[in-house]
Amino acid sequence: MAFDVTNDFLENLTELIATTNNLAINELFEDLHYADIAEVLDELDFDESIYIIKLLDSEKTSEILTELDGDTREKILKNLSAKEIAREVGEMDTDDAADIIGELSEERQRRVISALKDDEHAADIKELLSYNDNSAGALMGKELVKVYETWTVAGCMRRIRAQAKEVSRVHSIYVVDKQNKLIGRLSLKDLIVAKNDQKISEIYIDKVDSVNVNEDDEEVAKIMSKYDLEAIPVVDDNNVLLGRITIDDIVDVLKEEADKDYQLANGLTQDVEADDTVYELVKGRLPWLILGLFGSLGAVIIMQNFQTIMDNPEYKALFFFTPLIAAVAGNVGVQSSAIIVQGLANDIIKGSLWSRLLKEISISLINGLLLSIIIIAFTKILGFPISFSLAISISLMSVIIIASLIGTFVPIILDKRGIDPALATGPFITTSNDIFGILIYFSIAKLILGI
Amino acid sequence: MAFDVTNDFLENLTELIATTNNLAINELFEDLHYADIAEVLDELDFDESIYIIKLLDSEKTSEILTELDGDTREKILKNLSAKEIAREVGEMDTDDAADIIGELSEERQRRVISALKDDEHAADIKELLSYNDNSAGALMGKELVKVYETWTVAGCMRRIRAQAKEVSRVHSIYVVDKQNKLIGRLSLKDLIVAKNDQKISEIYIDKVDSVNVNEDDEEVAKIMSKYDLEAIPVVDDNNVLLGRITIDDIVDVLKEEADKDYQLANGLTQDVEADDTVYELVKGRLPWLILGLFGSLGAVIIMQNFQTIMDNPEYKALFFFTPLIAAVAGNVGVQSSAIIVQGLANDIIKGSLWSRLLKEISISLINGLLLSIIIIAFTKILGFPISFSLAISISLMSVIIIASLIGTFVPIILDKRGIDPALATGPFITTSNDIFGILIYFSIAKLILGI
Repeated sequence: MAFDVTNDFLENLTELIATTNNLAINELFEDLHYADIAEVLDELDFDESIYIIKLLDSEKTSEILTELDGDTREKILKNLSAKEIAREVGEMDTDDAADIIGELSEERQRRVISALKDDEHAADIKELLSYNDNSAGALMGKELVKVYETWTVAGCMRRIRAQAKEVSRVHSIYVVDKQNKLIGRLSLKDLIVAKNDQKISEIYIDKVDSVNVNEDDEEVAKIMSKYDLEAIPVVDDNNVLLGRITIDDIVDVLKEEADKDYQLANGLTQDVEADDTVYELVKGRLPWLILGLFGSLGAVIIMQNFQTIMDNPEYKALFFFTPLIAAVAGNVGVQSSAIIVQGLANDIIKGSLWSRLLKEISISLINGLLLSIIIIAFTKILGFPISFSLAISISLMSVIIIASLIGTFVPIILDKRGIDPALATGPFITTSNDIFGILIYFSIAKLILGI
Repeated sequence: MAFDVTNDFLENLTELIATTNNLAINELFEDLHYADIAEVLDELDFDESIYIIKLLDSEKTSEILTELDGDTREKILKNLSAKEIAREVGEMDTDDAADIIGELSEERQRRVISALKDDEHAADIKELLSYNDNSAGALMGKELVKVYETWTVAGCMRRIRAQAKEVSRVHSIYVVDKQNKLIGRLSLKDLIVAKNDQKISEIYIDKVDSVNVNEDDEEVAKIMSKYDLEAIPVVDDNNVLLGRITIDDIVDVLKEEADKDYQLANGLTQDVEADDTVYELVKGRLPWLILGLFGSLGAVIIMQNFQTIMDNPEYKALFFFTPLIAAVAGNVGVQSSAIIVQGLANDIIKGSLWSRLLKEISISLINGLLLSIIIIAFTKILGFPISFSLAISISLMSVIIIASLIGTFVPIILDKRGIDPALATGPFITTSNDIFGILIYFSIAKLILGI
């Protein structure tokens, strides 16, 4: 049932725009969902997108704007006047409106807000803009249905009918006392099932989850997905009801979070996407490549220090195994750090560090033994002496243990210091393990072979 | 506001269990959310968990069971009789019930289902168990509020009151025709705002998104998050309404999906977690390590074939750079494949393969040039001849181009063949790029240096 933007569709549309056939364009978009129209605009030339935005009515375009890709939206907003933006934003829910206004320069923000016709809407948006990025406050919307505990069910229904017109989806009805402090909740269902003359104070549920307005958004996501909540009220330090966060915003937070960790694990520094420009893609990829390069140059210097081994005809083959040592060290490190980063995200890194240390060493010993058996068989086939095979195996085991400990404890330490542990994945771990790995490898091999 | 399982809490609880102080235990759990109690049970000894499950009433334990960690639940279910499980499952929504029964052996499934008291519930669960894993059918629940287009608003409200008692959250009201075919939807809000004597056929919204019962669950997740839906009805091929999927289940699908991709990118083969046993962790880590090892052994053989270079005092240092070549090839490959895997997941891999090829080559040339400058400076400082520096730089550039093309096109090809493109990330790309990288490096260096 999902709509796909086909080439035929785009060609047809471009044709219609070129011939300014507005009737046909409106018809084409009539039955499409906003998210689909946004996808179409992302594919169009810039002038064509502007043409469409100016053509469709603002009830529709306001929804489309919120769904657009960030880059496309930025370009379009640049070409709209403050008044035109205010008209779009006036149709949006407060949270979407604040997100979009927040993308503008401070000067334009002021102009757009003062061009808004609805003063209450403007005040709400201003309030939302005042909260820190990544806080519950920045994520919440002001649209909610609120009832006072002193109301009756019948009076409540009447007022909800009025409030509900401004609220696109009623998630929960929040019950407050005279000071607007959150004291409970009700579902529409509870209200429908209740008798007309009952007081809200008799029927409301006094157990209600809420989050503080300054709570971190990832923490909110954790709470909502743990408790399977579809909306959660947001309160200030005095428990005064300020707004609500809905699950669809949390889905976005979870996706962003997952994408960010995935990118860090794969050596990408910023939010790069396959359809970005060459410049953006280079900018997203180069930093970790350079870091990795410096690490490898460190390994070059280490090997220079062991170069006399090359003069030994029996043992010069040790140099054939350096990429193997580096690869195993890298893979082991990445595995360990990934498990820890996921564990930290899911709050399952518990117990003492000692028990974790013992566990990692046990796993490393088992993995190391099994890999060593393969290496001994392989070197035997190639005709290397047994002392050589043993030197490689024993140093490989040591490398695996050290690599897994680095992979395990660097993210834990970062996390304890309040730094994102995901930074210690991908190229960072691979690179540091390359250097340590090669140093350990030659040191141990030299010791064992007595060279 | 999130509850944390503290050591003090656990010690206190263990003490209460040891002294069979049931009153105090019930009090302790009185105000805790099911998800929190589940977390507590995950931490307890097995006998203690069973004790708690048997102590608390089934309305509570049924919710706890759905929230438990898979391993803990499996152990607990093993210790409950079919009748006891049926009592728990009888309290659950059909989708949760089917998930839990689905974890049992076929023999026990039959016994639990026949022990269910409510025949309709049993039939619903049986139906859900019949759908393929990872399909919309396996994800949906049968609980929904359904009205016929011929009803009036007043009659509708009356019947919804009855239906709603069995449905914990009313997401949407689905409107069907006489053949139970889905024709539209209504929100409770629409119903409240409407007049009592209006017909449903006059007020319902005839635009309703739905998914086929055989649709892939990841596709459902994509649709629901794209269109910001909180619930979606599920229909069969004849558009007959079968059930509904809610956003909280989709949050789980998205998380599983993200975790799986993250694990593949980091060389973990199965769903391993930090608190798994050593055996499970070894099983999750060893396969990719062995694959990586075989790749590196391939590189050893390649280097053996170039070993005469070692006899050349001027150029033997080429061997110091093999880990560098392998590392750059690996990093570039991982970056390229990660961008493509994310792009495929978000449906933004569009345009011709030629333009993507050109883009990758441009990016590689820029990155390669910048890295080469660093290498030339470094080798100059170490006193290597300029021909040596050039040989390394030029082969590095070639390695970067090839590695990025492999990283880009392997996932695209896998995806076209219907294989999960995420398989072509992490150790797979690193390993294949190691081998190709070292082969290209020595071949080109030999050519340039004329050795």
